[in-house]
Amino acid sequence: MLTFDIARPDEGLRAELTEKINNLAKPKGSLGRLEELAMQIGLVQQTLSPRLERPMNVIFAADHGIADEGVSLSPKEVTRQVVFNFLSGGAGVCFLARQHGFGMKIVDAGVDYDFPPRDGLIEHKIRKGTRNFLHEAAMTEAERDDALAFGAATVSDCHAEGCNIISFGEMGIGNTSASSMWMTLLTAIPLTQCVGAGSGLNEAGINHKYKVLKKALDNYRGDGSAADVMRYFGGYEMVMAVGGMLRAAELGMLILVDGFIMTNCVLVASRLYPAMLDYCIFGHCGDEAGHRRVLDYLGAKPLLDLGLRLGEGSGAVCAYPIVDSAVRMLNEMHTFEQEAITKYF
Amino acid sequence: MLTFDIARPDEGLRAELTEKINNLAKPKGSLGRLEELAMQIGLVQQTLSPRLERPMNVIFAADHGIADEGVSLSPKEVTRQVVFNFLSGGAGVCFLARQHGFGMKIVDAGVDYDFPPRDGLIEHKIRKGTRNFLHEAAMTEAERDDALAFGAATVSDCHAEGCNIISFGEMGIGNTSASSMWMTLLTAIPLTQCVGAGSGLNEAGINHKYKVLKKALDNYRGDGSAADVMRYFGGYEMVMAVGGMLRAAELGMLILVDGFIMTNCVLVASRLYPAMLDYCIFGHCGDEAGHRRVLDYLGAKPLLDLGLRLGEGSGAVCAYPIVDSAVRMLNEMHTFEQEAITKYF
Repeated sequence: MLTFDIARPDEGLRAELTEKINNLAKPKGSLGRLEELAMQIGLVQQTLSPRLERPMNVIFAADHGIADEGVSLSPKEVTRQVVFNFLSGGAGVCFLARQHGFGMKIVDAGVDYDFPPRDGLIEHKIRKGTRNFLHEAAMTEAERDDALAFGAATVSDCHAEGCNIISFGEMGIGNTSASSMWMTLLTAIPLTQCVGAGSGLNEAGINHKYKVLKKALDNYRGDGSAADVMRYFGGYEMVMAVGGMLRAAELGMLILVDGFIMTNCVLVASRLYPAMLDYCIFGHCGDEAGHRRVLDYLGAKPLLDLGLRLGEGSGAVCAYPIVDSAVRMLNEMHTFEQEAITKYF
Repeated sequence: MLTFDIARPDEGLRAELTEKINNLAKPKGSLGRLEELAMQIGLVQQTLSPRLERPMNVIFAADHGIADEGVSLSPKEVTRQVVFNFLSGGAGVCFLARQHGFGMKIVDAGVDYDFPPRDGLIEHKIRKGTRNFLHEAAMTEAERDDALAFGAATVSDCHAEGCNIISFGEMGIGNTSASSMWMTLLTAIPLTQCVGAGSGLNEAGINHKYKVLKKALDNYRGDGSAADVMRYFGGYEMVMAVGGMLRAAELGMLILVDGFIMTNCVLVASRLYPAMLDYCIFGHCGDEAGHRRVLDYLGAKPLLDLGLRLGEGSGAVCAYPIVDSAVRMLNEMHTFEQEAITKYF
């Protein structure tokens, strides 16, 4: 398995950043989360004047064997259909990416479909969907390592293109099921609190999904390590995202975290390399039942709470302007001294 | 007192808007608050393809007689100092306005200072600060009516310039005190739950502020109507904002609501004309103690919750990209039919 060299950002600048933020002409602390973000970004970038460069949303798409058990409202074919919608610019995340100046990369990590050659689709199909984890491991160790490495390589490309803030999205019918398995095994939160409606199951549907996943949990005979859980239940798109996040942290990039699935990718990534959490900015708390709980487990404070549950990186990209605001605060606000304002605290 | 002709938006388009939103290629409801906003904006603008044009942040500034009682951490001179900071572009709201393409208007509604003639400052000084409401009404009826009318006229100017979405901000040392009085009298929420730290009072400071305001409440002999409460305790900048909001609703503009003070202006405005609430989008829940309570009272669901408490319109402007996202969703997302995606709900 690929290894990464991830260090926590040096804390040496904290005092200077605090002083800069407190000397901006506003009541102390009155810009709330923007001030906290400015501190985090300043530390990650090791500067009092950070910059956000060429933001990028990387979407990994793949199919899941577990979808054969009827755990999703959506048929499997929707995975490839939505990939086409990414490429034509009509998907949910596309208008958000255009709005906020994000570049996009779409990676076929393992969709059960032979795409015709098409501009804008990065092909790295590990297999036409994972195996059904109700009966066997979703992927082999070699496949897992391939996915990790390709996710990392994709982020290296983004970095080489000048990107220093990146979000990850996913498309894969069945991947809330895979995420619930990661979550229950790595947090010890009971499975029932990790399972939700996905793309829109009703109560009976959620109940069926829970029963399938409970059986899969009972069948599992692995060692419970992050490396094994990731392989046994994961999707190729999810493991690629884990690899991408770890490489991003290694390169000192900011990671904008999307919804339930991507938060569970952070869970796995941070279990392997806890320091990667310092590079994460949690974009939103979504509407999928377990999302708030896994965020709480990670001690994460998401920026938005808008009831989104689309995936694709949409919640992360939607939160980007707030991150941008924090950076602009540091660079553009005048100080008390500059404006001859009585420092009132 | 000026009257306004404010009607609720016609509901005729609701069914068509619902159909359009539900046919966009995403799980039904998966864009959460963006879908609700799209509905509201479509109804206000009476179209399936709304547009946001020339967003504007109008800031009203004025001083308060009650500041003489030591109810604020900040000295009165800060009001005029921050007005200069608005004009030089270095204040908190300025970088947000630049980020999101907002125009700005700064109105001297009653600052206790003779500004030298300066580009960008709109002069309509009703008086050099209100009277001290601990002992007497803050303003006369004629002053209140003047403020309402000038706020309305300022918004008419914005509308004539092509603006269809507007936020209001304020600067006025002492105006959380004035807002707490409006809030307790018009909602019947006990004063103690309406009083907070303002620009940064400690517990002793808040306690003193409460005692002063309690005495003012005991001294009040008015009829408790919105028109009287507004006059007795209000600031000129707050009454101008009320007038501005009412004119904006009358003209069918969207109103982006900022923090504690502006939410209390909505409280007064909606007591006079309940239909104006349909035009309001609540930008954020701030850190001032009573803000959440007055939002709850109004049934308002703010978009952001970032611990902001700067005023100036900053929380409203900060939330603008989310409103923009809702509009782009309606205009830019492809439908299931367009993309030949299996409609999975």
